[in-house]
Amino acid sequence: MGMTMTQKILAAHAGLSQVKAGQLIEAELDLVLGNDITSPVAIKEMEKFNKETIFHKDKIALVMDHFIPNKDIKSAENCKCCRDFAGRHEITNYFDVGQMGIEHALLPEKGLVVAGDAVIGADSHTCTYGALGAFSTGVGSTDMAAGMVTGKAWFKVPSAIKFELIGKPSQWVGGKDVILHIIGMIGVDGALYKSMEFSGEGIRNLSMDDRFTICNMAIEAGGKNGIFPVDDLAVQYMKDHSKREYKIYEADQDAEYEAVYTIDLSTLEPTVSFPHLPENTRTIGTFEEIPVDQAVIGSCTNGRLDDMRIAAAVMKGRKVAKNVRCIVIPATQEIYLQSMKEGLLEIFIEAGAVVSTPTCGPCLGGYMGILAAGERCISTTNRNFVGRMGHVDSEVYLSSPAVAAASAITGHISAPAELGL
Amino acid sequence: MGMTMTQKILAAHAGLSQVKAGQLIEAELDLVLGNDITSPVAIKEMEKFNKETIFHKDKIALVMDHFIPNKDIKSAENCKCCRDFAGRHEITNYFDVGQMGIEHALLPEKGLVVAGDAVIGADSHTCTYGALGAFSTGVGSTDMAAGMVTGKAWFKVPSAIKFELIGKPSQWVGGKDVILHIIGMIGVDGALYKSMEFSGEGIRNLSMDDRFTICNMAIEAGGKNGIFPVDDLAVQYMKDHSKREYKIYEADQDAEYEAVYTIDLSTLEPTVSFPHLPENTRTIGTFEEIPVDQAVIGSCTNGRLDDMRIAAAVMKGRKVAKNVRCIVIPATQEIYLQSMKEGLLEIFIEAGAVVSTPTCGPCLGGYMGILAAGERCISTTNRNFVGRMGHVDSEVYLSSPAVAAASAITGHISAPAELGL
Repeated sequence: MGMTMTQKILAAHAGLSQVKAGQLIEAELDLVLGNDITSPVAIKEMEKFNKETIFHKDKIALVMDHFIPNKDIKSAENCKCCRDFAGRHEITNYFDVGQMGIEHALLPEKGLVVAGDAVIGADSHTCTYGALGAFSTGVGSTDMAAGMVTGKAWFKVPSAIKFELIGKPSQWVGGKDVILHIIGMIGVDGALYKSMEFSGEGIRNLSMDDRFTICNMAIEAGGKNGIFPVDDLAVQYMKDHSKREYKIYEADQDAEYEAVYTIDLSTLEPTVSFPHLPENTRTIGTFEEIPVDQAVIGSCTNGRLDDMRIAAAVMKGRKVAKNVRCIVIPATQEIYLQSMKEGLLEIFIEAGAVVSTPTCGPCLGGYMGILAAGERCISTTNRNFVGRMGHVDSEVYLSSPAVAAASAITGHISAPAELGL
Repeated sequence: MGMTMTQKILAAHAGLSQVKAGQLIEAELDLVLGNDITSPVAIKEMEKFNKETIFHKDKIALVMDHFIPNKDIKSAENCKCCRDFAGRHEITNYFDVGQMGIEHALLPEKGLVVAGDAVIGADSHTCTYGALGAFSTGVGSTDMAAGMVTGKAWFKVPSAIKFELIGKPSQWVGGKDVILHIIGMIGVDGALYKSMEFSGEGIRNLSMDDRFTICNMAIEAGGKNGIFPVDDLAVQYMKDHSKREYKIYEADQDAEYEAVYTIDLSTLEPTVSFPHLPENTRTIGTFEEIPVDQAVIGSCTNGRLDDMRIAAAVMKGRKVAKNVRCIVIPATQEIYLQSMKEGLLEIFIEAGAVVSTPTCGPCLGGYMGILAAGERCISTTNRNFVGRMGHVDSEVYLSSPAVAAASAITGHISAPAELGL
């Protein structure tokens, strides 16, 4: 029986020639990731079991990103715990204030993940790296602890759903609209514990940043992972960012999929997830005017350079609406610097937005834009659960950077078309 | 009997030809200021007394700066309270995310304070505006409430201490070193409820930003206010920033001072306040190596354009030391933008610092760089009390931006001279 792309990577990392959906395997890991919230829990688990050694000092990445620069004493203590641990074990890839960025934007940028890798991370959006043709998935902190000690993890081999992408999206439609459309179609448990495997000629019309966004939100459909085939664009990205050797896996012709969906990208419209689930999608034009109090452009989903460029193109020469707070958060120091050099940050500031240092911040209700009761935010982040960005009586609407930027200008949820773009 | 500069301003605002130290007066106010922490308390006081009107919609400034973009639900609710109040009363000078900055940097920049004004603010560092030849002082939230309703405030006319400044400071010595030196000399209660009146030919060697820094920390010597004579530089500043008419008051020749100190600026050295009081000053070179975990460059004391330029001059082409987190916080959107245009922010990022959106943040242990137990920070802020920036077992050392920037590079408290500058 043929294997999917994900299954092939897992088989190779388990030292098996063949695996099938549902099989339990133990796989070698190329990278174990944790952040400032989850790593301290994992570190304490290691201590609990008197495990004092790590499997490989170059294959663990600890990224301080959720609450830094430290938002309070607790987060300061958490970062200190990670910093001390990284120092004690001489962990190469420890990222703190100044070198840091949001983990899922940072790791590909630093070349720490390449095609063919198997990666676990104690963060649900670890599935992002599927854009590079890697298997990557989120785990709990205890699995992270075991991974740091043994360099291995147990998996149940996932079955798969195939998304055949065709056509070319129109100007202001991007990766976020694609994944929101899919989640709207299959629901937040539509891919539960399954691989979401993307294929089709439409892929060539998606930038790497589009693909990162799409894989990033695989978990929001319940997916174990999302994964893209490795084309020339992905190879070029790896050459530009990494010195590591990559390995390209392709799905077998006779791989088994539980479902196959064909999505014509040219038919997609700017899409918004209404409260309080990512699956509550509607396209702009199909709902009444919804005023917003805040617009957030950033996160591991949409804080990359393409996202900054798109938001700046929409906001250039325009002003953020009175009574709207617009918060732009480049996902890494590198993206921040490049955005500055290209004049994008100047556009944001001139428009009346603020630009934050890289952080997950408001996405998970951490800081940098928390909502009061009754407030409403349009956000390029990945979750709009009840209370996700603050008060339980606040609302988060998910969208692309194009829509979030346009909404910041008009003061209500809008596509760039409303600005004549 | 002659009057001091402060006494003359107070007399004019009380409609009196003469006042003397210790006299109780009621003065008309040109501006009443509050921030996102203190204004909600004042607003609730107004409600408690069923006061529904304000004295003047153009003479109240509400500046959201301490915990914004909102750091948590409580701060979100506080900002919402201010925003709603400002909307209800059509308050002209309401500053929220995007137009904002740290209050004491923002108000002069926006031209809201000019020479001869009497200003109260529900924030202890309201004394900053003395740099422009205004009387300004910090009050509690209930006084702010009364001020918003009546446009008046009661004062006990302060006595004064005169600081005669002579000479020219050397390259890396600035306003912060001057005021730390003074506080070290007279102590944190050395000017309790007194005016700190600056004079002398040395003033011409201090930039406006130096003077703002000096007046800003008058309160750290217990001063009621700090005040500078209005020279050509101050007049030019007001012409550049304000459309309001200013009025220059000069101290009488026979004004009474409780003490007169002469300070030769040319003899000052880079000065640091050791934990846990601003008066614990020492000059660099007189103490052993003190490693730091964090360097903060910003705040209402030292987040102005001159401060950014000085820090950038020190950090240009250099790298922040491993294990040091360097956080740069331009005090207003305007300063942020100008710093970006001048390439200063690029220097900071390339050096490995992070640049925050304007906020008081870490200064008062709010967010954006809170310290864990045992951590040590060199900071351009104004207070180093126990637990001020986080854990009670952390330490804050106060310094100029030159020293904070140099320390970020070396990893221990240093003057720029240590870098060959």
